[in-house]
This record gives sequence, structure tokens and C-alpha cells, in this order.
Amino acid sequence: MSTIAPPAPEASAGLREARQPSSKVAYFDKDEPLRLDAGRTLSPFHIAYETYGELNETKSNAIYVCHALTGDQYAASASPVTGKPGWWSSLIGPGKPIDTDRFFVVCSNVIGSCMGSTGPASIDLSTGTPYALDLPVLTIPDMVRAQAMLIDRLGIDQLFAVIGGSMGGMQCLQWTVAYPERVFCALPIATGARHSSQNIAFHEVGRQAVMADPEWHGGRYIQAGTRPHKGLAVARMAAHVTYLSEAALQRKFGRNLQDREQVGFGFDADFQIESYLRHQGMTFVDRFDANAYLYLTRAMDYFDIAAEHGGRLADAFRGVQTRFCLVSFSSDWLFPTEESRAIVHALNANAASVSFVEIETDKGHDAFLLDEPEFSGAVRGFVSSAARARGLNP
Amino acid sequence: MSTIAPPAPEASAGLREARQPSSKVAYFDKDEPLRLDAGRTLSPFHIAYETYGELNETKSNAIYVCHALTGDQYAASASPVTGKPGWWSSLIGPGKPIDTDRFFVVCSNVIGSCMGSTGPASIDLSTGTPYALDLPVLTIPDMVRAQAMLIDRLGIDQLFAVIGGSMGGMQCLQWTVAYPERVFCALPIATGARHSSQNIAFHEVGRQAVMADPEWHGGRYIQAGTRPHKGLAVARMAAHVTYLSEAALQRKFGRNLQDREQVGFGFDADFQIESYLRHQGMTFVDRFDANAYLYLTRAMDYFDIAAEHGGRLADAFRGVQTRFCLVSFSSDWLFPTEESRAIVHALNANAASVSFVEIETDKGHDAFLLDEPEFSGAVRGFVSSAARARGLNP
Repeated sequence: MSTIAPPAPEASAGLREARQPSSKVAYFDKDEPLRLDAGRTLSPFHIAYETYGELNETKSNAIYVCHALTGDQYAASASPVTGKPGWWSSLIGPGKPIDTDRFFVVCSNVIGSCMGSTGPASIDLSTGTPYALDLPVLTIPDMVRAQAMLIDRLGIDQLFAVIGGSMGGMQCLQWTVAYPERVFCALPIATGARHSSQNIAFHEVGRQAVMADPEWHGGRYIQAGTRPHKGLAVARMAAHVTYLSEAALQRKFGRNLQDREQVGFGFDADFQIESYLRHQGMTFVDRFDANAYLYLTRAMDYFDIAAEHGGRLADAFRGVQTRFCLVSFSSDWLFPTEESRAIVHALNANAASVSFVEIETDKGHDAFLLDEPEFSGAVRGFVSSAARARGLNP
Repeated sequence: MSTIAPPAPEASAGLREARQPSSKVAYFDKDEPLRLDAGRTLSPFHIAYETYGELNETKSNAIYVCHALTGDQYAASASPVTGKPGWWSSLIGPGKPIDTDRFFVVCSNVIGSCMGSTGPASIDLSTGTPYALDLPVLTIPDMVRAQAMLIDRLGIDQLFAVIGGSMGGMQCLQWTVAYPERVFCALPIATGARHSSQNIAFHEVGRQAVMADPEWHGGRYIQAGTRPHKGLAVARMAAHVTYLSEAALQRKFGRNLQDREQVGFGFDADFQIESYLRHQGMTFVDRFDANAYLYLTRAMDYFDIAAEHGGRLADAFRGVQTRFCLVSFSSDWLFPTEESRAIVHALNANAASVSFVEIETDKGHDAFLLDEPEFSGAVRGFVSSAARARGLNP
């Protein structure tokens, strides 16, 4: 299966605990439109989300976990699509660094995605067909605005923490500038305050790969009864190389051959790295919607938190009240340490409470999804000390 | 136009000065087959080449210039395909670092390419149709073996120098290990002794992009009367990002918008880097053959000069007689400086004459094709001093 069917239109009235197939879904009807940066509104819309742990009486122990580009709401529970454990199950759970015995964790599928929240595969009620490219182009601020509407629904005034890596880190930063009084502490990981030229370039390669596939049909592939699998697989392969480091690739695969003693003098996968990438491409298309890939990469490209402040990042954080811990990984060349450092400097200029950890690892950008002891330790330490400062007793 | 038509079969008998359309072409008939690493032979075959300057009486002043992946024989003269000046016209010419008043420069189109030498678009005499994927997969050693046959034809026993960057640098290294006595000095630039896992990965992405294009027709697109332009453009775009550095992209493009004051909330090219990449993709498909792109990327992937020596690079250079100058560029992440340094160490272990220059630049891998004063100076200095050592008086 690939995408979760959008909810029936008649289902979209008020929050309910319907699972779709396994998530909670918050429906926002026509009286609660989502204002979009594109100058339009999205209405009705819905957000699929998961929660872990219990909200305390004062509603002061909520942690919003924001997922990355191809992530989903299943941060700490098995994905019904892939059957795999939650993507951050190493970090989130009873007794884990994000301790669900103490905290109420919310993780929602971003709008524009394809795992149950409104996205390009959802039905456009004005036409009765999937939005495809008629969905307005969404931004990181749009995603976060929707998340704020969800926590309003849940009756939460202030989040104890917002935590996320990569695109999740962008949402995390956006939370602190859009709703400074609603975020006690923030943990933006392996991210940047704006998408770099090189990162835009790689995303554009991916989008062109999708749109070059004739099965894309100008975005209307669902009606055409097909999927641009080949283009999306190429996009995923190109992106996947950027998630790893040269050193990790060399260590893991090197020039090792795939099931053979010498090269095959052909265009089959000779090298293990080739098989690995092909596998990444093929499995991705089974779980992800091609148009959602276009929308989410675009949202990341558009992200530039300083843009409205003449490019002055320090100004973007003026009046910031949130406590920060920034984490980068030494071999991450997609969001290199200097990107985190620039944020730290901007926060310092506002006398914010900031700590910063660069984790030494050769695992590249992907390290934020892996079980790296030093990383887990940093998360545990920051969350615990911020909880003490917030008066949340263990 | 895209590829140059292969020569008529009847034209392939002996060397002649036929131009095709503007190159000299050396034909190798059935009595002179090219032995291939794939365990087969290529016969007949032909090599298109250009020469600059005059061969001296003792035939001791010849410099072989080896081109990179998408390069051609037009190193110092305008390309008849693009009309652009030769790709190394900043380095090669009268009074230039590779001084055609002193040296006889030979630059040939590698076999497997599409600019006049035998490649996948050439006619397979056994079928009367283009080879497409029936051409055996070629290697860097195969290319160099063909080049050695060309200099035999030209009556040159020993080359004064072999010079090349990137894939040209691989050929350069191969010359020194396959024909140590035939190369007085060598200038391998921005290259490596083997293709890294990451580089194989990017090539595989490009190949998959080409082969995913339904217009590729299993390689038989010429007969189908079409070309896999979209797939090849995506491949070129992906590769092009790797030729630049993050710093250069940021300096040149940053997040600058294309002809607009704000983002367009769509999937057209909003950012200058997107337009630039799309342009790179579109112009490339007009000048390059998709199957040739598959063959040449494969040849680079297969390159591993130490493979036959149990991975011991120093052993590959045993008995080396050539004087070396290696050049790397500080911001080149495709062939980082450490790749050159590994070659230097291996040569040092053989007490070879080696110099090594790392050029400080933010221009990435592409720097070897740009007019970088420090780089030109290094080439001029090394060529001049080697010429003195060779007894070639100015």
C-alpha cells in the first residue's frame, strides 16, 4: 500500500478519536480554516497524529515531536504501513531520553504529507478528486500553524518542548519564533535556519526526476491509475546519498561487490552501494506519495527564518523566551555544524539560554535517526534539566 | 545535433586525415583489434582526435591531454558541436602553460564516448545498427590501451607528458602504470586512484535516471527515433551539483530568486540555482549521448588501480619511472585532496619523483576546468621544469 485514503468528507466535523487506519485524526472544518503563506486558506483539513504518555493535570508536560521530510506520526510506535518500529523509538518511550512515563508526546503528520494529514493526495471537496498540484504550496510556517491549532484542540497552552531533526528541526525553530510564549524549550537537531543553495539544488534534482516520469501525468497520476514510481525512486536515491557521509559509505560499502567476485561488465548492480541505493528507491515508492515529495521538498526550500528580517537571523529571534539545545553531527554535510552555529550565534545575540552539542560521528545527516549514545545522552540531559527548570518533577 | 555520425564502415581502413566533422580520425581495422578488460575485443574501431603544435624531429615533445567524463577532443579549439572555445584553452596554446609553440599536444575522444570515437552510438558492423548496450562495457585501461595504439600510429615512442583532470586524471594514472616507460611526466589533476563509494552512488543515480526514462528503450532509442532527454537531463543535474562546492553555490546563487521578488508558491524555478541546474540539464542533452553517459560513468566506477595488487596502491606503482605532479582543489568533494595524497604516498613508497599542489579555491571539482591562476602557474611550472629535465630546450 502507499498512501492512506483521505477521510470521507462527512467525517470532517470536530475532533474525534477515529483512527485512520491507526492514527488519531483532528478534523478542522470550514469554520476553522488554516491560513497559508501562499495567501490562501486550506479548509477543511485534517491532521493525523499519535500520542504517547499521559497529559498531566496542568497540561505542562507536552512534548511536540516534529518529523523529517519522509517521516510520519509514528515516532514511537510501529508504522502500519511498513510494520517497522517508530522512527525515534530509541529516544521516545518509558524510561527513554524522551520519557513517556513523565511526558505527553504528540507527533503529527505534517500537512502536505501522505500519512493521514491533508496533502496533495487528499480529496479536494470542490472537485471531488485528489488535490494533486491544486493544493496550495505549503511552507514550514504553515505546518507549524496547523500544529498550533492541534494543540489548541488538545487544550495545551504551552508545550514543554518541541523536538525535531532536519525538516523537523525547521518546524522546531519556527515554533520558537512564531509562538515564543508557547514553547518552554526546543531541541532543533541537524537542521538550519534556512535551506542552502546546495540543498535546494538536490531537492530540485529530485523534483525533476519525479516530474520527468511520464507516469506523473502532471500530478494527476491517481486518476490515471498509475504512479511515477521510477522517477520517485531516482529522487529518493539522489536524496539518500546526501543523508550519508562519504566516510560512512566507504566504511559500510566501500567498493565491495554484490554477490560476485569480479565486476560484471554491465549495468546491473555490481557494487553493494548500487544494490543498497536501488533498494532504498524501491521501498520508498511503496510508502510515499510522489506529489507529497514535491510539496515537502518545496516547503524545506522555502524555509528561511531570517527572510522577513532582511536576512538578519538575530532579529528573527528577537524576544525569544525558549531555552534551546542545538545538536549537529560532525559528518552531516546536508546541515553542517556551521548551520547550527549560526543559530547559536543569533540566539546568543538575544541573550537566550542556549546550549550546543556537536556529536562526533561519521554517520552523516542520518545520524539523528540512529541510536547514537552520545546523541541520546544529550537529549536526555537537556530534557531532564529543562524539566527541572519548568518544575516538572520526575 | 547530439552525436556525430559514426564513420561509414568502408572508411575504416588505416589512418587518414579525414575530419569528422572537424577532427582527425584514426581507424583501426580488423587486423588491429582493441583488447578489452571485459575479455572481448573491439574491432574495427576508430579514435577521433585533435592535435595542436608540431611534433619535433625526435618526437620527444608530445603531450597527451586526457578529457573528463563529458569532455571531448576539442581541448584547445572550438567545439563544432557547441561553438564554445576548447575546454582547456586557458591552459593550452601558444605561450600558455601547455605551450603549443614548444609541445605537440594530442587530445583524443575516449572510446565509449560520442564525439567521433567508437562508442555505443557507433554502428555495430555485425548488425548494421548502433551498438547500444551490445558494446562491451569499457574501462579506463581500455581507453588508455586505445590511446597507446594511437600514439603508435603517430610514431611516438615516449610521451613527454600525460595530463588530465577527473576521469582524465584516471587515464593519466593508468598511462603511468600500464606504460611506465612511455610517459616521462604525468599531471593527474583532481582525481583518485579508485572511484569512491559515494562517487559510484552518484553515478548510479544518474544511470538509473537515464534508464528510468521510457524513451531510453533499453538503450535502443536511436532506432526508436527518440532520445531519453529527460532522464539524461536529471542525471546531468545530479552530477552537476557534485562538481561544485557548497561555498561556491552559496556565493554564486545563495537563495537568490529568479526574476521575481518573492517565491512563486509553485514548482517552476523560483531560485536561480534551479534555473541554472535546469539549463545545465537541457544543454547537456543536446551535446551528449545517453548510452555514452552510461558507459563512461561505468568506466569511472570500475577504476581501481590497486585492485590487481590486493588493494595495495604502492604496489600498483612499483617500477614507476614517471615524474609526477598531483594537483587537488581544497573544496573538491568529489575527489578530495586526501585521494591525491594517497597517490602521493604510494609514489613516495616507490621513491618516485613527485610534487603535489593543493590549490585553495571554493570552486569545487569544476576548478580544474576554470581559469585559476594558481593552478595555471602550477601546470606551467611543472611542465617547464620537466621539459628542462627531459632536455627539451625552450
